[in-house]
Amino acid sequence: MGKFMDVHSGFVGVTAEQLRDAHDRDLAIEHDEDVHFERAWLDPEQGKVFCLATGPSKEAVQRVHERAGHPTPEIYELTVEL
Amino acid sequence: MGKFMDVHSGFVGVTAEQLRDAHDRDLAIEHDEDVHFERAWLDPEQGKVFCLATGPSKEAVQRVHERAGHPTPEIYELTVEL
Repeated sequence: MGKFMDVHSGFVGVTAEQLRDAHDRDLAIEHDEDVHFERAWLDPEQGKVFCLATGPSKEAVQRVHERAGHPTPEIYELTVEL
Repeated sequence: MGKFMDVHSGFVGVTAEQLRDAHDRDLAIEHDEDVHFERAWLDPEQGKVFCLATGPSKEAVQRVHERAGHPTPEIYELTVEL
């Protein structure tokens, strides 16, 4: 299993409730891909969302996000963690 | 106090030891700005580093990184966290 950070851009003005809804859509299907989205953070002023996940591959993380309706081209595999 | 994610680009091939050294330079001086760098993650293939910090302001986080020798223009204030 690997650890991944994905970054979503263009979410200026998103609310806490909207982030929670989006995150819940990931959590509802993540087990299909053996992925778990551990944390999510939002900067609504600059419109950035960061999601920290574990899973078997970058592609598995991407598939969950795609099916949940919020794909992103930016997924990073975090092979070092402090 | 706020929570911040900063993103560093262009670190392709950086090693775990180099990340540890850079992180230690932040930790050595962060108290001057009332900042704490909690976590750091590295994707050495795509050259991205993510640092999660708490502190009084984005500028305070930036000043620590500048003095430690690794400034970045990308610092996000995380007002929502799941």
